[in-house]
Amino acid sequence: MRLKNVKGASEKIESSKYIVKDYLNCKGKYKELFNNDNPIYIEIGMGKGTFIINNAISNPNINYIGIEKYDSVIVRAVEKLENEDIPNLRLIRFDATDIDKIFDKEIDLIYLNFSDPWPKERHANRRLASIRFLKRYEKIFKEKNRIIMKTDNRKLFEFSLISLVEFGYKINSISLNLHQDDVSNNIETEYEKKFSNLGYPIYFIDVEK
Amino acid sequence: MRLKNVKGASEKIESSKYIVKDYLNCKGKYKELFNNDNPIYIEIGMGKGTFIINNAISNPNINYIGIEKYDSVIVRAVEKLENEDIPNLRLIRFDATDIDKIFDKEIDLIYLNFSDPWPKERHANRRLASIRFLKRYEKIFKEKNRIIMKTDNRKLFEFSLISLVEFGYKINSISLNLHQDDVSNNIETEYEKKFSNLGYPIYFIDVEK
Repeated sequence: MRLKNVKGASEKIESSKYIVKDYLNCKGKYKELFNNDNPIYIEIGMGKGTFIINNAISNPNINYIGIEKYDSVIVRAVEKLENEDIPNLRLIRFDATDIDKIFDKEIDLIYLNFSDPWPKERHANRRLASIRFLKRYEKIFKEKNRIIMKTDNRKLFEFSLISLVEFGYKINSISLNLHQDDVSNNIETEYEKKFSNLGYPIYFIDVEK
Repeated sequence: MRLKNVKGASEKIESSKYIVKDYLNCKGKYKELFNNDNPIYIEIGMGKGTFIINNAISNPNINYIGIEKYDSVIVRAVEKLENEDIPNLRLIRFDATDIDKIFDKEIDLIYLNFSDPWPKERHANRRLASIRFLKRYEKIFKEKNRIIMKTDNRKLFEFSLISLVEFGYKINSISLNLHQDDVSNNIETEYEKKFSNLGYPIYFIDVEK
């Protein structure tokens, strides 16, 4: 994603009720934060938030946490939420490399949408479905591990498939051209809308371990 | 495949030195038949044989057996071989449904190229990577199980992936658009040439257990 410097971004982020500011102290305590026993789904790299906000609105009995490392991007989600009241949604400005420092056995599902493909082989372990990351996710999942991924990047998808299967995940469902299938339940991301309109296949996988 | 009635097909097949006629008595004896210890690769549904014949020519230290159930199709392979001398190749006219009746712990690799997709859900267990078939293959593999599949049929490929992973196979390599990758080592089938020329993506997977 090309990043612009957004004026006043950090103030806006700081003042939003959706932002978890003291996330380092919230590890293992999201049940208390949401004040219920509902499952917790997170999106790593939520971008401008369309996907996770629409999910949270559609599924009030699931708690959602969006994670995004860039101020200039997360601020767009914060702006969208200014006049909204969605109790089952929180956002964290954080680099997911250390995801296991902010959650502890409390997550039910991870969404990886249109993640950075890190195309160079020497950066393979920065890809969010690399074994390095899958090991970290092990520490944050509550019981079953479940990951749902969407991307338009074929090489990233192929790599992720090999890695997920190597790590023991089984495939609940898969589509190698999501928008040619029945997508009545599909909630689009910003990227997805753009790329599927351009006719690129969107790759989808739902895996569990 | 649309089948034509080919005049004199069965006579031609019967008289070919490549055809294993007494295949029911050859179970477990292919090492003796080839008279060496080389690995044995089979192709289930070899069609007109381009793929397996070219493989056999390119890799004299591997033994190849092509299996095809239709006289009118296998006869085309037989015709291609009329003036050839390829000691590491045999063909069997047989319905692969009972594959474990003709081999016993002697196969190193199975090729499934452009197999019948059996699109109706009630025919799912006729697909060559269904659990029903994977169980049969267990009986014919020598040590490691290895399957290499190519197809242009997205639904068949998605189904096969789920099934193979469910059964415990790991992915050696995968391509969701084979002809956009480096295919310098790829030996094409008749279908593959046709479909990739039309611009359809060819799906490829190499799995092992």
